[in-house]
Amino acid sequence: MLAKRYLMSPGPTPVPPEVLEAGGRQVIHHRGPDFRALMRRCLERLREVCRTEGDVLLFTASGTGAFESAIVNLLSPGERVLAVTAGAFGDRWIAMASAYGMDVQELRYEWGETPRAEDVGARLVETGARTAFVVHSETSTGVVCDLEAIARAAQEAGALLVVDAVSSLGAVPVETDAWGLDVVVSGSQKALMTPPGLSLATVSRAAWERSADAASPRYYFDWAKLRAALEKGSTPSTPAVSVVVQLDEALRLLLEEGLEHAFSRHAALGRACREGVKAMGLTLFSPDEDRSAIVTAVRVPEGVDARDVVLGLRDRFGITVAGGHGDLAARIFRIGHIGYYDVFDVTTTLAAVESLLVETGASIERGAAVSRAVEAYDDALGG
Amino acid sequence: MLAKRYLMSPGPTPVPPEVLEAGGRQVIHHRGPDFRALMRRCLERLREVCRTEGDVLLFTASGTGAFESAIVNLLSPGERVLAVTAGAFGDRWIAMASAYGMDVQELRYEWGETPRAEDVGARLVETGARTAFVVHSETSTGVVCDLEAIARAAQEAGALLVVDAVSSLGAVPVETDAWGLDVVVSGSQKALMTPPGLSLATVSRAAWERSADAASPRYYFDWAKLRAALEKGSTPSTPAVSVVVQLDEALRLLLEEGLEHAFSRHAALGRACREGVKAMGLTLFSPDEDRSAIVTAVRVPEGVDARDVVLGLRDRFGITVAGGHGDLAARIFRIGHIGYYDVFDVTTTLAAVESLLVETGASIERGAAVSRAVEAYDDALGG
Repeated sequence: MLAKRYLMSPGPTPVPPEVLEAGGRQVIHHRGPDFRALMRRCLERLREVCRTEGDVLLFTASGTGAFESAIVNLLSPGERVLAVTAGAFGDRWIAMASAYGMDVQELRYEWGETPRAEDVGARLVETGARTAFVVHSETSTGVVCDLEAIARAAQEAGALLVVDAVSSLGAVPVETDAWGLDVVVSGSQKALMTPPGLSLATVSRAAWERSADAASPRYYFDWAKLRAALEKGSTPSTPAVSVVVQLDEALRLLLEEGLEHAFSRHAALGRACREGVKAMGLTLFSPDEDRSAIVTAVRVPEGVDARDVVLGLRDRFGITVAGGHGDLAARIFRIGHIGYYDVFDVTTTLAAVESLLVETGASIERGAAVSRAVEAYDDALGG
Repeated sequence: MLAKRYLMSPGPTPVPPEVLEAGGRQVIHHRGPDFRALMRRCLERLREVCRTEGDVLLFTASGTGAFESAIVNLLSPGERVLAVTAGAFGDRWIAMASAYGMDVQELRYEWGETPRAEDVGARLVETGARTAFVVHSETSTGVVCDLEAIARAAQEAGALLVVDAVSSLGAVPVETDAWGLDVVVSGSQKALMTPPGLSLATVSRAAWERSADAASPRYYFDWAKLRAALEKGSTPSTPAVSVVVQLDEALRLLLEEGLEHAFSRHAALGRACREGVKAMGLTLFSPDEDRSAIVTAVRVPEGVDARDVVLGLRDRFGITVAGGHGDLAARIFRIGHIGYYDVFDVTTTLAAVESLLVETGASIERGAAVSRAVEAYDDALGG
């Protein structure tokens, strides 16, 4: 039978047809004038998406690589750093900074909690750390923190702020310059609607100053070498040329839609998903608030294993959602809605979840989720 | 006017239509069963191309990143290493190892010279270095060394050998297991006929043992973490999914042609290019020998600037060849012929070079190059 596939994970996300087509074009040379012009335009578009006049550095690596670049370019071995964690990605940056020999002070929340600016400020003062890491959108839980407030707290404490915006950039506001974010890390494969393979880091003036004294060894991820090349539209080593072509095309689509409209659309998608989930009688794991526009984490009913929901959606309906990390594996599943999505991607997923859970004998309200989701989407967009 | 493009650089190289098509397919999730099966098959094909039963690790990074992985996984800061250099890429690995705080002992040749196994053996004994870096195909000069002999010399000296095979793997023999190569580094964008974005490193048993004691900090490029994930068909962070799909398809094409046939074809392409170049009265910079199957470096006639040849080929004929690095920029240009090429790609380039040089008033033999190249290609293939 025809097997249609639906990618509803919070990354990689589906790629628009125009961007797929760009991926099928013949490779061009990375030192020629065509590529230089393309790279310059792509960086300009990235600056616009990041809302910064400063530098955006583009790496051929996953988001993890771009985050590593922040550690090795900003810190010296043994240096104290404050890492805020409330999920799998916060934990990853702690593991990475520890691997690089940093003195990692943790501000740890339960998974699913939302980090608070006042805690960040207090812990920065208490530890004297000159650098803080925070995850804007913790993809493992669906929590999006109040980044503006946290950035203010970091500034008041005199610390640089490094932001994991891998799943948030392009979906919810990330005001790099206006909020004074020193380093914003993101990847191509989430709201930027591009296949994985590229990642980026913005670098503020203060971060550049700090990096001049950072003694950690680095080469592939060295910022200064990369900036010097990018300023000429080039790169120190061969970049993922085809993915750059695709990213440039995807950024064109995103900027044509308009960032503000994209933010509204994502907020509405999140609202639609949450309302649909609640309408069928399920409980949310991620917060029921407008910022939760990236991924909706849903608790399964008593007696159902979330891993069976993930497998069932995939095998019965061709729908890929994400499971829970670690201890949450049996208890939650996660529906991603960042990037190339409209409300009908959400309703497709809700209809399949409803059908699957009814089969398991779970007590589910039938027929309510889809129409409630469409209604909530329209309401959210003021339609 | 119609502007056809010809990519005749030694990387990135043109991608076959089947591989381009694969690049235009919708993204799949990197934790699902489709991707796991694909990744396992792709790694099995890579083992076949690398002629190894050991591990092949696949990175989302350029070849420079994979080479960095060898440094940080094998060496501890301050450790002595012997680096063999006869060109730009040998120099790059020296710069990288120095950035990581290694005690780099150099075995340095003039650019264009061919490293000799006896020198490598003698310097290893003299320096006591336990690790040697060698570039198999120095893309900046067109020189391909006798890797088998150098590997023997390293073994006799009891040193691990790390090989930059970025431009050689798939074009000329690289017998990882039979020659006892400890680490072979390569990239997707050369003879493997795939867009850039992925790179690989083979790791021998001895290299794994060494890596267990290597104290350099590492995370993104950590071998052990990557192997543990790859064994399950997964990766520690999101890989360049689309490029993996393309690499898998390109490897299928390469293995269908057969490695031995691919080696013969590349040797014949090199011979064709050199014979054509000589037939028009030009002088070779790269050695006139069968191993020079990767890139043909050509000296320009007296009074001609090689940079003008590179620009002229591009602007007049849409042909991208490579210029010379550093001091060689004015004196040589380089024609790449690794990957998706047959003899008519070479003759197209020779016809354009001939036409361009005649216009400059250089003393060039007209009408000989193309037919001589075709003849040499047929002779080389025993046709």
